[in-house]
Amino acid sequence: MKKKKKVNAAILIIGNEILSGRTQDKNIAFLSNWLNLNCGITVLEVRIIPDVEKIIVKNVKLLSKEFNYVFTTGGIGPTHDDITAASISKAFRLKYQYNKEAFRILENYYGKENFNDGRKKMAKMPASTKLIYNPSSAAPGFITKNVFSLPGVPSILNSMIENCKKYLSKGLKVHSSTINIFTVESNISKQLSQIQKKYKKSVEIGSYPFFRLGKIGVSIVSRSTSKIKLNRVNKDLRKVIKSKKIKILTF
Amino acid sequence: MKKKKKVNAAILIIGNEILSGRTQDKNIAFLSNWLNLNCGITVLEVRIIPDVEKIIVKNVKLLSKEFNYVFTTGGIGPTHDDITAASISKAFRLKYQYNKEAFRILENYYGKENFNDGRKKMAKMPASTKLIYNPSSAAPGFITKNVFSLPGVPSILNSMIENCKKYLSKGLKVHSSTINIFTVESNISKQLSQIQKKYKKSVEIGSYPFFRLGKIGVSIVSRSTSKIKLNRVNKDLRKVIKSKKIKILTF
Repeated sequence: MKKKKKVNAAILIIGNEILSGRTQDKNIAFLSNWLNLNCGITVLEVRIIPDVEKIIVKNVKLLSKEFNYVFTTGGIGPTHDDITAASISKAFRLKYQYNKEAFRILENYYGKENFNDGRKKMAKMPASTKLIYNPSSAAPGFITKNVFSLPGVPSILNSMIENCKKYLSKGLKVHSSTINIFTVESNISKQLSQIQKKYKKSVEIGSYPFFRLGKIGVSIVSRSTSKIKLNRVNKDLRKVIKSKKIKILTF
Repeated sequence: MKKKKKVNAAILIIGNEILSGRTQDKNIAFLSNWLNLNCGITVLEVRIIPDVEKIIVKNVKLLSKEFNYVFTTGGIGPTHDDITAASISKAFRLKYQYNKEAFRILENYYGKENFNDGRKKMAKMPASTKLIYNPSSAAPGFITKNVFSLPGVPSILNSMIENCKKYLSKGLKVHSSTINIFTVESNISKQLSQIQKKYKKSVEIGSYPFFRLGKIGVSIVSRSTSKIKLNRVNKDLRKVIKSKKIKILTF
């Protein structure tokens, strides 16, 4: 069996509506979780940028070089502000043209008489891309080199994501484990730091305060590609928590 | 009266918990809205990066050069994974040291006997920063050059944001106006494109599909620093909508 390696990705959210704060993004958390759980791919950077061609071109070029995969969301609809396909074509110096299969899918979906210019636009893509089929609203996403372009509407994106799987190299899955306790971070920061040092190469320990039932608590999240190391960290953490007589929550 | 100019900002979200999808970010939309409404500052880029020193250093350097302001969130607590202050010190080649005022504030808040090393860490900052006072949990944020560092917990960040105002140059506020209609984007994409061309220098028109009551709709969002131009665009939009006998929704 070939040993799995770490595989990474970046997410590029294209859209003034997210950047302006008008719309709350939901795709980042979904994509990041899906990629890790289903493909062992770790998202290492996210960028949110406006619908401006030269900015999209610059970021696609840069991120596609730096990461194994790039996932773009948004800007693949029928209106004037949907410029993702044209911009990716420019980034890779590919022709921006009708994809024959996408054209047929959309013509069939809308019917010949209703297949207007706006709808036809959704079949225009960089040359020689692979399609990502769309079971909810027909208009396909597309894969250009290592860049996967998906729509911005979360429900449509979610319905398409499984169709990306066969094109992705699987990496090492990151396992995670959370311990929730009622205490303040500074009460355990010294011990956490010691445990993190002990496992600095294999486990990543994060500490996140929360408020619940009027009390302050901390979620300690450990993440590792090794379940064995994760269990060892958890044992060490539980020892510290016990010695300090802190209650572990089960929610 | 001095004529106001456009002022921009970038947001840098520092935190593995957002990047991994474990935590849903709430700070981007809040900060972007607050900056525009209260200060006329437009957010032009957002990045989400992991708790890794060299990545934080690189991004702080780059974004602080490219934008008028940078807002970082996360990584200013008492634990080992809170490395924002140390990283920003490195980015600007400033000493990472105790801020006397922050030290006094925290010592006073916790009491001398409970002021342990973790808590003291929250007083360590780049040399010669200005403090951003924190009415909810004492630990201050800080301003280094044009970089504003805030905590990651949304409720605490929200309580501190007004204390940033006096340090920010006000810019031109972007006004926005939304028309919600029951139709599909491709039914109006041609006309939208024409109106956008007519006002391409002054108004930015976006089109965003939505689902409601089992029907498909579109939100047309126009944004401009000029209320007059915005009204003109709205007039043109309403003409198109009327001519196509589309119903305008009032929610």
